[in-house]
Amino acid sequence: MQKGIMLYEGKAKRMFATEDPDVLLVEYKNSLTAFNAQKKASMEGKGQLNNLISSEMFEYLNSQDISTHFIQKLDENHQLVKKVDIVPVEVVTRNITTGTLCKRLGVNEGIRLPYPLVEYYLKSDELGDPLIMDEHAILFGWAGREELKSMKETTLKVNELLTGFFSELGIVLVDFKLEFGKDKDGNIILSDEISPDTCRFWDKQSGEKLDKDRFRKDLGNVLDAYQEIYKRIMTRKN
Amino acid sequence: MQKGIMLYEGKAKRMFATEDPDVLLVEYKNSLTAFNAQKKASMEGKGQLNNLISSEMFEYLNSQDISTHFIQKLDENHQLVKKVDIVPVEVVTRNITTGTLCKRLGVNEGIRLPYPLVEYYLKSDELGDPLIMDEHAILFGWAGREELKSMKETTLKVNELLTGFFSELGIVLVDFKLEFGKDKDGNIILSDEISPDTCRFWDKQSGEKLDKDRFRKDLGNVLDAYQEIYKRIMTRKN
Repeated sequence: MQKGIMLYEGKAKRMFATEDPDVLLVEYKNSLTAFNAQKKASMEGKGQLNNLISSEMFEYLNSQDISTHFIQKLDENHQLVKKVDIVPVEVVTRNITTGTLCKRLGVNEGIRLPYPLVEYYLKSDELGDPLIMDEHAILFGWAGREELKSMKETTLKVNELLTGFFSELGIVLVDFKLEFGKDKDGNIILSDEISPDTCRFWDKQSGEKLDKDRFRKDLGNVLDAYQEIYKRIMTRKN
Repeated sequence: MQKGIMLYEGKAKRMFATEDPDVLLVEYKNSLTAFNAQKKASMEGKGQLNNLISSEMFEYLNSQDISTHFIQKLDENHQLVKKVDIVPVEVVTRNITTGTLCKRLGVNEGIRLPYPLVEYYLKSDELGDPLIMDEHAILFGWAGREELKSMKETTLKVNELLTGFFSELGIVLVDFKLEFGKDKDGNIILSDEISPDTCRFWDKQSGEKLDKDRFRKDLGNVLDAYQEIYKRIMTRKN
C-alpha cells in the first residue's frame, strides 16, 4: 500500500489515504498529551510501542468476533485500517474508580465497581470532551439510539474479553476509552486504538501503574511501562 | 405552628423545625445567587414572591395528583412542608436549549427539542453540581434505579402540567430544576421550590425573560419579572 496524502492529524496519530478509498494508513506518533493537550511531550519509541500493542489487541478482538477497523500491521509505526466515519461519542468503561471520575464526582479512588460503568463523552477538544447522557447524543445527532446500544454492547463484550486477557498477564484493566466508526456499509465498528494511552493498566501484584498515568502524574519510566505491557502481551504467543 | 430551631440554611431558603417532627417550616430568603454562588445579591421582596409563586405551583400540582412536600402557605415568607430526606440528584428538564447546556456542549441557543430532555446533576455546591448519568447515581448510592425512574416519570408529568399551565398565561416554560425527597414512609415526593429561581420563563409574545436569567445576565428589572409571573398566575384564580 502506498502512503498517500495526509487526511487528518490527531494528538497521537496521523491518517493517510491509500490507493484503496476504503482503506487508510495510520501512523502512530511519538507525542504524548494529557489534560486535553495542556501537557505535552514526545518520546522516541512511544508511537512504535502503541502501534505494536494496538495491533495485537485488535487482532485478538477480531479473532473473538468483535468487528474492528483493523486490517493489518504494516511495519513498526504503521497499520492499515478500514476507513470509517468516527462517531463523535467516546465510550469510557470503568471497572475501578480513578482519574477524572473521582475529581468530578468526589468519589474515592480505587473502588472496585460491582459492575462496569459505561460513560459517554462528546469527542470535542474545544469543549474538553464533556460527559454526556445518551439522550444528548440522540437529541443533538451525535449518535442514534440503536448505534449507542450497539456501541455499549460491544464495549461490555470488549471489557470482558480484555479483562480476562490482561488478567492472565498479571494486569488489572482499570478503565479504557473506545471510539467507534461507521464503515461504508453503515456498520458500527470498533476504531481508534487500544494502548496504554487509552487504557489504565495496573500490575496485579504491585499495583504499579503501567499506562499514561505515569506521564500524567510524572511518575517516570513511561516507556518502560509501555514496553512491559507489550512484553507481557507477547508472552501469550510463545 | 411554632418556628423552632433552624435545621438548615441554603442559598435561597431556611428550614426550621416545628412542634410536629414530620413538618418543617420554610422561610424564603431575599438572596439571589448564580453561577454556583459566585454572583450574589439580595432583593427586598424576592423571598416573598418566590414563596407566593411556589405555594401556588405546589397547590396546583397537589390538585393534579402529583405528590409534593407542600402542606400550606403560612404567611408572605413562610410555608409548611413535609420533612423529607433530599435525594442528592437534581433533575433538570429542558424544552428549549439555553444556558449551561449550550456552553457545555456547544449546541445552539433556542432549539425547541422534539421531546423534553431530562438531565441529572449531583447536588453538590462543592463540586459545582456536575452532570451525571443515571448509572453514577445508582453505583455511588445517590439514588436507586427505581427512585430515578419514579423521579423521571414525575418530572415528565410535571413538565406537561406546567407547560400547559404557563402556556395559558402567555408564558413559555423553557426549562426547570426539580428536587425530590423521601418522606417518612419512604415515598419519593417532589420537594424544594418551583419559582423563577428554578424555572426559565419566556414571555410567549415578546420572548422577554421572566426569571433568574435577568439577574444572571444583568438584564435589570429582576423583581418586576418575578412580580409579572405571580400576577399572571393569580389571573387564573379570578
